[in-house]
Amino acid sequence: MKLKSLVAAVAISTAASGLFLVSGVDNTAQAQETFEWKMVTSWPKNFPGVGQGPERLAKLVDEMSNGRLTIDVYGAGQLVPGFEVFDAVAEGTAELGHSASYYWKGKAPAAQFFAAVPFGMNAQEMNAWLHYGGGMELWNELYEPFGVDVMVAGASGVQMGGWFNKEINSTADLDGLKMRMPGLGGEVMSRMGVAIVNMPGGEIFTSLQSGAIDATEWIGPYNDLAFGLYQAADYYYYPGWHEPTVMFEAIVNDEAMSTLPPDLQAILRTAVRDVNADMLDEYTARNNDALETLINEHDVELRRLPDDVLARAKELSADVVAELGESSEMAKKIYDSYTSFQEKVENYHAISEQAYYNARNPEGDTTE
Amino acid sequence: MKLKSLVAAVAISTAASGLFLVSGVDNTAQAQETFEWKMVTSWPKNFPGVGQGPERLAKLVDEMSNGRLTIDVYGAGQLVPGFEVFDAVAEGTAELGHSASYYWKGKAPAAQFFAAVPFGMNAQEMNAWLHYGGGMELWNELYEPFGVDVMVAGASGVQMGGWFNKEINSTADLDGLKMRMPGLGGEVMSRMGVAIVNMPGGEIFTSLQSGAIDATEWIGPYNDLAFGLYQAADYYYYPGWHEPTVMFEAIVNDEAMSTLPPDLQAILRTAVRDVNADMLDEYTARNNDALETLINEHDVELRRLPDDVLARAKELSADVVAELGESSEMAKKIYDSYTSFQEKVENYHAISEQAYYNARNPEGDTTE
Repeated sequence: MKLKSLVAAVAISTAASGLFLVSGVDNTAQAQETFEWKMVTSWPKNFPGVGQGPERLAKLVDEMSNGRLTIDVYGAGQLVPGFEVFDAVAEGTAELGHSASYYWKGKAPAAQFFAAVPFGMNAQEMNAWLHYGGGMELWNELYEPFGVDVMVAGASGVQMGGWFNKEINSTADLDGLKMRMPGLGGEVMSRMGVAIVNMPGGEIFTSLQSGAIDATEWIGPYNDLAFGLYQAADYYYYPGWHEPTVMFEAIVNDEAMSTLPPDLQAILRTAVRDVNADMLDEYTARNNDALETLINEHDVELRRLPDDVLARAKELSADVVAELGESSEMAKKIYDSYTSFQEKVENYHAISEQAYYNARNPEGDTTE
Repeated sequence: MKLKSLVAAVAISTAASGLFLVSGVDNTAQAQETFEWKMVTSWPKNFPGVGQGPERLAKLVDEMSNGRLTIDVYGAGQLVPGFEVFDAVAEGTAELGHSASYYWKGKAPAAQFFAAVPFGMNAQEMNAWLHYGGGMELWNELYEPFGVDVMVAGASGVQMGGWFNKEINSTADLDGLKMRMPGLGGEVMSRMGVAIVNMPGGEIFTSLQSGAIDATEWIGPYNDLAFGLYQAADYYYYPGWHEPTVMFEAIVNDEAMSTLPPDLQAILRTAVRDVNADMLDEYTARNNDALETLINEHDVELRRLPDDVLARAKELSADVVAELGESSEMAKKIYDSYTSFQEKVENYHAISEQAYYNARNPEGDTTE
C-alpha cells in the first residue's frame, strides 16, 4: 500500500511539474499521502456527552496530522444503524467506530466486561485495569478474530439507578415492575422479580409516559435531562450499582489500521486516549448542574435505593457476573483478570478515594 | 518563521537536485522543519510514577511528529535544580518543564490551588474543573505574566496521610510533633500544634530515622515503598486529606510554543493530555500491590486518622484555603471558581461516586 501510494505520488508530481523529483522524495510522498476515513457511531450525531467524543477525535486527528488523516463522523442510522457499528467496522464499510462493547454480547458475551459490570469497577479503576492491568490486551484478544482493533474511548462515570413511577422502599416493591434495563444489570433485576423490557433508546420516553413500563435507567442527569425523562416519572434513584461507569470504545478495522504509517497510528491512538479522559471530565462537570435543574425546576424526587435492594443486588450481581465468566474459556480469562484486579483496587480505594470522600463529606447525600 | 524555513528549504533542495522544486513544496518544507527541545523536571530521571510522565511525553511526541519535535528529558539537577524548573522555562533555558505548581507559591501563592488543596477536589474532580469549569484558563492567566503556558500533566490520586513513629489517637497526640508536610496541609497541621519542618525529599528518610522528625508525608504506597520509609516509621495513616490528589503540570515557554506550527502544537497538547490520564492509571494500578507489600512483608501498621483529627483538619483547612483566596485579586478569582465548582461536584459525587463506593463496600477499610 505504501509502495503503491509512493508510485502514484511520483507519477502525479512528475506529471504536474514536468520535472524530475528532488531528493528526499520518499519522505515527501509519505507526508503527502492522505487518508479519508469514515467513523460510524451508535449515537445520534452530536449527542451530548458520548456523541461529542467522536467529533473531538476527528478534530484532534485532523489538527495533529495536518489534514493527512480526516475522519467523517456518522451518527447512528446515517450510514449504518447504531447496533451495526461493529459489523460495519469488521467488514470495512467504515474504518472506525464509536460504541459500547455490551452491544456485541450476541457475538461475544465476554465483551460486556469491558463496558459495565454491576458492582464492578468505576471509571478510574477501569482505566487502571485496561491500561496497567492487562485489560486492553484481553479486549483486543477478544476482538481479534473479527479483524477489529479496540481502544477505550470514553467513560460516563457512576450512573444513576433509574427513573421509577413509584417509591421503592424494599425489594418487595420491585416485584412485578416492568423496567427497561439492558445487560447484566437487567439480568440481576430480573432475578429480583422485575420484568425486563428491552427497547431502543428512542422508545423509552413514550413507553414510560404511557405506562407500558414503570421504570427505566438511562445514563445520568446530563443525558437524562436532555431526554426529558422527568416528564414521565417522579422518582430518580441512586446510585447506579448496575453501571458504576460505562466505558465506551473506539474500534478500528485492523487492515485499515495497518495501512496507516506509524506516525498516524500514534496520532490516532493518542487522540483516542485524550477523548477517553475528556468525556469523563465533561460528564463530571455537567451532571451536577443537570441534577439541580431536575430537582429545582422539575420537582424530581431524588432517592437513594434502600439498603436491602442494594445488598440483594450485590449478591445477585456476583452470581450473574460469575456465570458470564463461565460462558467460554476467553470469558474465564477476562473474568479472572477483572475480578482479581477489582479486589486489589477496591482494597486500596477503601483507604484512599472512598475514605477521602467519607472524610470530606461524612453525611453522604446532602440533597435531601 | 515559516516563511524563512520555506526559503531555506527551497534553497537547499534546489542546490541538492539542481532542478526546480515540484508543486506542493510548502507542505514539504514545513514537514521537514525540526525542533529539538529540552524538558527539565523536578523529579529524579525515570522516578517511578511522576518521573515516567515526562518520558512518555517525549516518546509520544517523537512518534506522532515523526521525529520533527524531539524532547530531551532532564532529571532534577541534571540541567537545573528541581525547584528552578519554572524559572528555567520562563527564561527559555529549557522549552518545557514538568513539575507541580505548589513549588511556585513564592512567585504566585495562588498557584497552590492547581496542585493540591486540603479537603479539596480529587483527581476526577480537578480534571473536570480544569477542562470544563474554567480552571485551565485561570491557571494560564496566572502564569501569563511569566511568559509560561501551562497544561495539567498527571495526577497522584488520593495520597496517604503520612508516616508516624507513634500512634495518633486524637488531636492531642499531634501536639509538639515534628513533621515534614509542605504547603497548605502543613499550615493546617501547624495550627493543630505540629512543628512543621521543611526539607528536600532526599533528606526525609534519614531525618525520620534519626528522630530529627517524628512524622512525614510523601506520596502513596507505590512511591513510599520505593523510598523505604517503612524502615523509619511503623504507622502509616490514611486518608491524605491534605492532598486529595496532586496534579502535576507541563509548562512551556510561550515564545517557544509560538514557533511550533499548529500541528506540532496540537501534538504536544494531546500528548500531555494522554500523560495526564496515564499517570493516574499507573498510580491506581500500582498502589495496592505496594500497600500489600508494606503490610505483609514489612509489618507496617495501617491506621485511619481519628475522626476528631479529620474533623478539626477540615475546619482549619477551610480557614487556610480562604486566607489564600484573600491573598490577591487573582487568588480571589481562582478561589471563587474552585470552591463553587467543588460545591457542585461534591454534591453530585455524594450520590454517584461516594454513594457507589459505600454501596459496593459498606464496611470501608477491610485491611484491618
